[in-house]
Amino acid sequence: MTAPQPLLDLNADLGEGYGDWSMGDDAAMLEVVTTANIACGGHAGDARTMRAATRAAAARGVAITAHVAYPDRAGFGRRFLDMAPADLTDEVIVQVGALQAMARAEGTSVRGVKPHGALYNALAHHAGQAAAVVEALCQLEGLPLVAAPGAAVVEPAREAGLEVVLEGFADRAYRADGTLTPRTLPGAVLTDPAAVAAQALSIATQQGVRAADGSWVDLPVRSLCLHGDTPGAVELARTVHARLEEAGVVLGAAL
Amino acid sequence: MTAPQPLLDLNADLGEGYGDWSMGDDAAMLEVVTTANIACGGHAGDARTMRAATRAAAARGVAITAHVAYPDRAGFGRRFLDMAPADLTDEVIVQVGALQAMARAEGTSVRGVKPHGALYNALAHHAGQAAAVVEALCQLEGLPLVAAPGAAVVEPAREAGLEVVLEGFADRAYRADGTLTPRTLPGAVLTDPAAVAAQALSIATQQGVRAADGSWVDLPVRSLCLHGDTPGAVELARTVHARLEEAGVVLGAAL
Amino acid sequence: MTAPQPLLDLNADLGEGYGDWSMGDDAAMLEVVTTANIACGGHAGDARTMRAATRAAAARGVAITAHVAYPDRAGFGRRFLDMAPADLTDEVIVQVGALQAMARAEGTSVRGVKPHGALYNALAHHAGQAAAVVEALCQLEGLPLVAAPGAAVVEPAREAGLEVVLEGFADRAYRADGTLTPRTLPGAVLTDPAAVAAQALSIATQQGVRAADGSWVDLPVRSLCLHGDTPGAVELARTVHARLEEAGVVLGAAL
Amino acid sequence: MTAPQPLLDLNADLGEGYGDWSMGDDAAMLEVVTTANIACGGHAGDARTMRAATRAAAARGVAITAHVAYPDRAGFGRRFLDMAPADLTDEVIVQVGALQAMARAEGTSVRGVKPHGALYNALAHHAGQAAAVVEALCQLEGLPLVAAPGAAVVEPAREAGLEVVLEGFADRAYRADGTLTPRTLPGAVLTDPAAVAAQALSIATQQGVRAADGSWVDLPVRSLCLHGDTPGAVELARTVHARLEEAGVVLGAAL
Repeated sequence: MTAPQPLLDLNADLGEGYGDWSMGDDAAMLEVVTTANIACGGHAGDARTMRAATRAAAARGVAITAHVAYPDRAGFGRRFLDMAPADLTDEVIVQVGALQAMARAEGTSVRGVKPHGALYNALAHHAGQAAAVVEALCQLEGLPLVAAPGAAVVEPAREAGLEVVLEGFADRAYRADGTLTPRTLPGAVLTDPAAVAAQALSIATQQGVRAADGSWVDLPVRSLCLHGDTPGAVELARTVHARLEEAGVVLGAAL
Repeated sequence: MTAPQPLLDLNADLGEGYGDWSMGDDAAMLEVVTTANIACGGHAGDARTMRAATRAAAARGVAITAHVAYPDRAGFGRRFLDMAPADLTDEVIVQVGALQAMARAEGTSVRGVKPHGALYNALAHHAGQAAAVVEALCQLEGLPLVAAPGAAVVEPAREAGLEVVLEGFADRAYRADGTLTPRTLPGAVLTDPAAVAAQALSIATQQGVRAADGSWVDLPVRSLCLHGDTPGAVELARTVHARLEEAGVVLGAAL
Repeated sequence: MTAPQPLLDLNADLGEGYGDWSMGDDAAMLEVVTTANIACGGHAGDARTMRAATRAAAARGVAITAHVAYPDRAGFGRRFLDMAPADLTDEVIVQVGALQAMARAEGTSVRGVKPHGALYNALAHHAGQAAAVVEALCQLEGLPLVAAPGAAVVEPAREAGLEVVLEGFADRAYRADGTLTPRTLPGAVLTDPAAVAAQALSIATQQGVRAADGSWVDLPVRSLCLHGDTPGAVELARTVHARLEEAGVVLGAAL
Repeated sequence: MTAPQPLLDLNADLGEGYGDWSMGDDAAMLEVVTTANIACGGHAGDARTMRAATRAAAARGVAITAHVAYPDRAGFGRRFLDMAPADLTDEVIVQVGALQAMARAEGTSVRGVKPHGALYNALAHHAGQAAAVVEALCQLEGLPLVAAPGAAVVEPAREAGLEVVLEGFADRAYRADGTLTPRTLPGAVLTDPAAVAAQALSIATQQGVRAADGSWVDLPVRSLCLHGDTPGAVELARTVHARLEEAGVVLGAAL
């Protein structure tokens, strides 16, 4: 008889400062999550933040993924940048490599790659950039990918032999087709702690959520993304974490 | 009976472009050198140039070192930057890590680290920054260091158990104490091809050179640094290479 | 009786180096053009190149426009960046302001603004970014704009009271609708010096060109853009310049 | 009879965010100060922060100086960078120019220049960099300089015909020679609100302070620099402001 398989991974973005600027409460989030997505100098982060975040994650036994992004600190990686696929492949490799070296220095390792912001969004539909990221991961000795269910990048990644961890969101409303309600629409972001915790629990135990129109949406995700960049977000993350533990959900890193 | 040990390594700086800007003639230098110092995004270089340079070096069987530098592309890493030692350690690790990942993607590896420009100069006398670089190499699983004879970094590196490859210059005049004649003094840079080739040969076969004042200087170096950033420099490098081969010097990577 | 109005402005991109990297032959192009579009640190250029280019332009009596671009040196401003309009407005203002201060320091001034690369292309069709650039120029005390005929930015700029200088290309094939043949299609770029010079002359004297399909296209442009980033391009620019002078076209800055 | 001359200027650093990162509480400090030193993209700041800070300062009727710095956001301008004087001159010009354009866009203007961090410190003793900054200000049509009493830059600036505003610090201990006690020594930073307010008042009304060794130091300063980058600092600034007003010190911009 084997140990019970963890049922849910909780992931959050860490190490998103730059120089003297900080963002979010990494220490608080590390008490909640099982995976830390650490910025690699694309949208945020530098050598110092990579050191601090990998060290803190290692100390807590939290798994690390490389939070790769368009090279655009000025825009925090939230603006689409029309990179040529070959350039994007190379960019992902050097961003991940930087974090890998720091992780080795801290006695830990990078277990996967999670794209950030506008790149994450592009991978939902942009075939060329999706292929570029898949190519990068193959050249990175097959590092796993974290992606949204249904994203354009998922099938090419799997066909290339990569492990893909699907993730959902506890604080975002879903549409009947399984995509997120755009932030420009009312009700896109859930703010009521009880509602957010309920959605987290629904994802964890039923592998699905009730869409905005009332229909049921299957969400076969292995991980849940939590936000921590505002005091309110940290509090919400703690609430979700507590609710999941109360309900007996086993939390553990997906990678 | 074993194969004869290579007597001299020839190294040059490669991959020093950035974006659409190029510098030097990498292809020409790869026909001459046995080690390529590839820029890692500090003073020069980006994901695209790291790709091109590691690929070209691998194709020629040329060894690769990481050409780490102060993070100052605007100044090409030639201006002293008073980094805190801990920041410098972290910076070296992420620069090397970026190149290591690209080297692995190209089926090769980074064999050592050569500091660039103002950082190279600082390591000759700045104990704090020297210790910071040694610390980085230790955390990079003991990567070897390329340094100038007598530099402040040499002893701490050896004491830390690191391999240190000493290098000399064929086109720079030496002083009686083994240091280079500063560029601000007349005669600091040798430009006559015959004189440069003769100094290279002297270093290779006699492990020393005649200093500007006529005295003999021991230079127990394993590698010779060649420049390739001007058409004249490339031609000079070819002349040195040819002269060494004629004289029966066995050329081979030091690492 | 007034002095004869100059019939044609010749413009080219200058000051496109960065740090120790150079691009193009600014000195050669300054002998040919009547307007220099000087990079402002967006796609290229820094304080040193702005100094050199404004000084050289001023010494030749060549007019200066600010060559504004997406803040993306790594991509040379050739990649679309989905900037929020308010951010783009602010970015254009600070890029132009930097060049204005340097121009004043050199006893000259910035006469207008020419967007570069992907931003230039976006202004042909992207209403939000076009409005953002128009807003920037209004806040820059009404600096004139250089644009392509038919670009989405032209009408809003004129409605806002800005002077708009239309420009054409001697070395690009036009389509029947007045747009450029995309570079991905055969024949998009003219390389035969005689053909390029003939198109320049046609634009100068007849305010139009023969399109690829043989139809006539009106091109009521006041300026002609020449390229200088390759040795061949410089030679071509000289040929165009000579041919226009032979034909009696009066050359002079549009602004 | 004319209006009474303001006796003291209170200045603070504003607009020190970058992209999505913020620093300090600009709104709070604008209620306290009469001059805002706005970051120009050297150590901090970008087009968006320049917009926000100039707009807020203009709305409050607070004077603006350009807070120029070494181009080193990663180090927040706090690390000495050995720039060649000519490069430093050019860098100061383009940083100031960027802010000037934004100030004009907001209907206000840049009244002077205050160097930041390591550059401020270098100007205390580094003759080459001091001359470079003076040269920049001359080329910026004679913009005034804010400096520390006794700094190496003061005399060259005055000899060049520039107005120099001297500033003191309420929360730093002075030595008998009028220089600040280095931060590495105990007691260098005053934290007791009463002591800080008392030192401010002493500077305002007696143009001097009691040094750490008990001796009296003349401080003929026209401005007092307040910090606002921590909640405690903001509170301290308010206390100083209140104490000065209570004591009848007339506050007003120096430029």
